[in-house]
Amino acid sequence: MKLEGKVLVAQGGGPTAVINQSLVGVVKEARKFTQATRVYGAINGVRGIINEDMLDLTQETSHNLEEVANTPSSALFSTRDKPDEKYCAEMFKVMKAHDVRYFFYIGGNDSADTVRIVNEEAKKADYDFVAIHVPKTVDNDLTCNDHTPGFGSAARYVSNAFIGVNLDVKALPGVYIGVVMGRNAGFLTASSAIAQKYPDDGPHLIYVPERTFDIEKFHADVKKVYDRLGRCVIAISEGVRGANGEPIMSGLLKNQDRDAHGNVQLSGGALADLLADSIKTNLGIKRVRADTFGYPQRSFFGCVSDVDAQEAREVGERAVQLAMWQNDSGSMTIKRTGNYSVNYELVPLEDVAAKTRVMPDEFINAEGNHVTDAFRLYLRPLLGSGIGSAGRLRAPFVNKLLNR
Amino acid sequence: MKLEGKVLVAQGGGPTAVINQSLVGVVKEARKFTQATRVYGAINGVRGIINEDMLDLTQETSHNLEEVANTPSSALFSTRDKPDEKYCAEMFKVMKAHDVRYFFYIGGNDSADTVRIVNEEAKKADYDFVAIHVPKTVDNDLTCNDHTPGFGSAARYVSNAFIGVNLDVKALPGVYIGVVMGRNAGFLTASSAIAQKYPDDGPHLIYVPERTFDIEKFHADVKKVYDRLGRCVIAISEGVRGANGEPIMSGLLKNQDRDAHGNVQLSGGALADLLADSIKTNLGIKRVRADTFGYPQRSFFGCVSDVDAQEAREVGERAVQLAMWQNDSGSMTIKRTGNYSVNYELVPLEDVAAKTRVMPDEFINAEGNHVTDAFRLYLRPLLGSGIGSAGRLRAPFVNKLLNR
Repeated sequence: MKLEGKVLVAQGGGPTAVINQSLVGVVKEARKFTQATRVYGAINGVRGIINEDMLDLTQETSHNLEEVANTPSSALFSTRDKPDEKYCAEMFKVMKAHDVRYFFYIGGNDSADTVRIVNEEAKKADYDFVAIHVPKTVDNDLTCNDHTPGFGSAARYVSNAFIGVNLDVKALPGVYIGVVMGRNAGFLTASSAIAQKYPDDGPHLIYVPERTFDIEKFHADVKKVYDRLGRCVIAISEGVRGANGEPIMSGLLKNQDRDAHGNVQLSGGALADLLADSIKTNLGIKRVRADTFGYPQRSFFGCVSDVDAQEAREVGERAVQLAMWQNDSGSMTIKRTGNYSVNYELVPLEDVAAKTRVMPDEFINAEGNHVTDAFRLYLRPLLGSGIGSAGRLRAPFVNKLLNR
Repeated sequence: MKLEGKVLVAQGGGPTAVINQSLVGVVKEARKFTQATRVYGAINGVRGIINEDMLDLTQETSHNLEEVANTPSSALFSTRDKPDEKYCAEMFKVMKAHDVRYFFYIGGNDSADTVRIVNEEAKKADYDFVAIHVPKTVDNDLTCNDHTPGFGSAARYVSNAFIGVNLDVKALPGVYIGVVMGRNAGFLTASSAIAQKYPDDGPHLIYVPERTFDIEKFHADVKKVYDRLGRCVIAISEGVRGANGEPIMSGLLKNQDRDAHGNVQLSGGALADLLADSIKTNLGIKRVRADTFGYPQRSFFGCVSDVDAQEAREVGERAVQLAMWQNDSGSMTIKRTGNYSVNYELVPLEDVAAKTRVMPDEFINAEGNHVTDAFRLYLRPLLGSGIGSAGRLRAPFVNKLLNR
């Protein structure tokens, strides 16, 4: 069956460094198929569909598409709206009016859930329709995926930041705490481990949301490293949780700010400042610095993993191929098939929608304060080519003449 | 006169992305001169001299020196110690014992002051001695210099971060505040302006320490931009001051943390969080995010301006040439001679030592909330080659069918 009609693509959730690669993968591939009468892009995700704010991407130059592909963040802009049945009914009115038959939504697990709802609505309405969720997330927390587009580049940012921070703290010793994105999954925080080249390199401690965060244990861990090396570099996820299961951060926030998906906003410097104060007060260490990595980690211009960019492009392209040749709906996933090779496979939407994957136990050390070599092996190819490493002077010491 | 003896090099103050280029410039050039009997590197700046902690850099491979040159932060490590006369007397004991005749200290205005004191002590002691300060600082605040090594790379980081942030905030609209390093001089914060490609791109507002920061005016500025564009991206220096001349940040810090130079530590997320809360409360805007850029801006691995790297190398090389051929002491400076070309000149140490340069009036707009084209022209070559820019979709809108 050759289902003829318009193609609609949109982007949801938080931006990544390579989400536009997937967009361009969808657009360029779709423009090759004669049954795709037009390729539309909705502005601001599902909200743009409701508002009929769409660009005709059939009328975009190939050169400009490539420029956009190399640009971070969502070129079609995004939304945190979470469609319910009423919202979907509105979307359908627009889709039907424009004869949209193929829908590609690039986003995380919330976006996958949106595609699932939209697709069910289509079935109920007996409307011939193919809807595919195209994965992206810097958190790397989608089920059924070995990893997700956007993660590799964000991980590259985090590891390059920690290479620098580690050297900085070696030059001017103290304690450094870097708070990294990651609400439920610690993959991105764990990526800081790549900064360790020499045995005494940081990050010396890594805390992820998969393990209960205990402030007393934290103090003891820091003290142990500091006593040994005279410095300590720490990577910690913004989403680390206390024994009550609540993120430490949420207790610190005065104006709790929730998005439409019910997620508490975890940004801001509160966790970093709390941990820094707590080290100063409890361990009596004077020089303690803490940074919250914030937006640059997901959108810094020019820090892209080529592997991540290529996979983001391919997963978008492949989604269109499966939609056009097989009329299959579902969620695109990346499966690792070798060391290092991948395949792209379509899985049922409900296997990915609104679910969260966290780090497997084998990636976290027994003490719960660092990663394992299994994680390092997993991560390395995702960072892409041209990963440099820090140099260190190796000249011999001069013999002391006065203090012999 | 061919002054024979050892060469000693050290690094002071905060690390930069290219401070090791200057180190390697000094070491490689010094190793060519027969009167340089050895080339030593002091560990942890002046403190390493007192402690006789020195490496024999004559015994370092050229390859490894190049690896180190391409590594951010201070390979010889640093110090915030500020030598007084007693401290200098101790340094001399060590220098004399090791027959050190050439001293190169790479650092900011505090380090220049250290070189000045050391040099005066040498004169008093009638010791044949050449001491040169080699400039570095991400703040770009040294007098007599068009700009200083380290600034271009940090500026490249800041502009790449704001390119991403601008796109991120366009995708998910709101107010974004990025707090950038800069205690007295706003050059680094101002560099965010390069992120503006299209007329509506951010940063829409830029606040530097050279202008009094008024919170009411700030609210009015943000409201104006937000009303027009539905979003607002702001770059602000950590050192912005209120009408009383004190940094806003210092009023916010509980445990005031001063270094040996009497500088209050301005890091931490307090300013960012204060400003974000104040926007939420006073303007009723819900989505407000604030990041403090922190350490990555001065040490992020792999974000280097090639122009900055090359100049950092040359200024170190040239310092050695002037010391060896002319036995001149002083502070190396970078002068701009064309568009774009530079010369390296030695100036008296007291012209640079402990002084601070701020942005000239012609670089700041009349309203005091952005930069001028004169600043853009000044900055561009310092960022180096391969500066990319963000792509944007330009396809036409689809005609609305339902909402005509």
